[in-house]
Amino acid sequence: MHFTAETSSNGVVERNFTLGEVTGVLWSPAAASGHAPLVLMAHSGGQHKRAPGILGRAQRFVTDCGFHVAAIDAPGHGDRPRTAADEQHIAVLRQAQAAGEPLVPVVVEFHIDLAARAVPEWQATLDALQGLPEIGVEGPIGFWGIMQGTGIGVPLVAVESRITAAVFGCLGHESLAEAAARITVPIEFLLQWDDEHIDRRSGLALFDAFASKEKTLHANVGGHGEMPRFEVDSSTRFFARHLGLAVTSPA
Amino acid sequence: MHFTAETSSNGVVERNFTLGEVTGVLWSPAAASGHAPLVLMAHSGGQHKRAPGILGRAQRFVTDCGFHVAAIDAPGHGDRPRTAADEQHIAVLRQAQAAGEPLVPVVVEFHIDLAARAVPEWQATLDALQGLPEIGVEGPIGFWGIMQGTGIGVPLVAVESRITAAVFGCLGHESLAEAAARITVPIEFLLQWDDEHIDRRSGLALFDAFASKEKTLHANVGGHGEMPRFEVDSSTRFFARHLGLAVTSPA
Repeated sequence: MHFTAETSSNGVVERNFTLGEVTGVLWSPAAASGHAPLVLMAHSGGQHKRAPGILGRAQRFVTDCGFHVAAIDAPGHGDRPRTAADEQHIAVLRQAQAAGEPLVPVVVEFHIDLAARAVPEWQATLDALQGLPEIGVEGPIGFWGIMQGTGIGVPLVAVESRITAAVFGCLGHESLAEAAARITVPIEFLLQWDDEHIDRRSGLALFDAFASKEKTLHANVGGHGEMPRFEVDSSTRFFARHLGLAVTSPA
Repeated sequence: MHFTAETSSNGVVERNFTLGEVTGVLWSPAAASGHAPLVLMAHSGGQHKRAPGILGRAQRFVTDCGFHVAAIDAPGHGDRPRTAADEQHIAVLRQAQAAGEPLVPVVVEFHIDLAARAVPEWQATLDALQGLPEIGVEGPIGFWGIMQGTGIGVPLVAVESRITAAVFGCLGHESLAEAAARITVPIEFLLQWDDEHIDRRSGLALFDAFASKEKTLHANVGGHGEMPRFEVDSSTRFFARHLGLAVTSPA
């Protein structure tokens, strides 16, 4: 793991890193003392490790909870080159979009391919992060990823026992059910009730498939891109609850 | 409205009151200054205005948010006499329980009867509460009630425009759909995913029926009586968000 750049603002230290072909970013509390929990964040399709939805939440997790937060570019995303297969997937996706066809079957095929490449990358990244003195191997680890982040995250959390709590959502497909059924850690699952891309029943079915003894579905009115801002607060509290920080409720 | 008893502990003043046949309790912040929002709480079947699930939440709403909180005994519950019809409903319910038959059809019939009596009682109680100088007519009003509290609360909130945010849940029945479709205020709707009494689809259908532009479903793993404690925090924040208190998130 090579750190390639470091900036700091508002109490958050941001370090870019590379690990082989993987490009990533690690946010940490500027005033860290001792080990702290780590949250891994996987971005959505067509986005990247510093997309606004990642960056805003990462800053909250660091400043409100004192966590370290790491995001990496998915294969073919952000600073990473696309393979011929990536280009082909994107072409098929654009074709479906232009034709007004359902996107989920196309997207899910892409996710399956991405997950096969991304899961070992996440595991190597986690190995490297745990090698850092400020993180270490003792602390609890959370995962946050919706949409494509769920397409990659469900197979990841299913095989990665170091991850002890996860936020997923905005996706549902039978191809994820088997991996979901192997997941037993606490889950917060987000759905948009009027999602124009994700069939409501398939989202509910994926929530149902997790074997977790604690899992909560948060379904909100609105379309695919209209998740209410208060769910950011909720995810923050979810990780605070499960990764070991004491939370005093304000209101 | 006659106050019949007053106690105070941990910053919460508790006053019992009667209003005609209605018996109720009003919790208020001991150090109140000026008007404050009001939350109305309706208890579940077979319970009463000071049941633990009411009392615990009421104390949180008062101490965390500075709200006033009022609960009244439903007709035939708590300190109120049962009519012959109440006794008959209870007998039928116990029969169904003993026979292992589905309870919802029986319960829903009871709720319809209770709501017809309780809605005007709630409205008269609200009139009287707004006549108190520490509450007044200006402040926003919330409603909290699950199970029977939803059976009464949905018809109440459908006709009572003074109520501007509501928490419902743990109930679903087509008889409530029409009233729900008239409700447009923000809703937090709680479901137990493995509820042994409430069919999951009927609960989801009731959530779907609300016309509210902001509504959130919180579905948690577990049976009818196993709602996780963090939903108390969530309801507290929901009311803080909608009844006008500034909330600074802690974690």
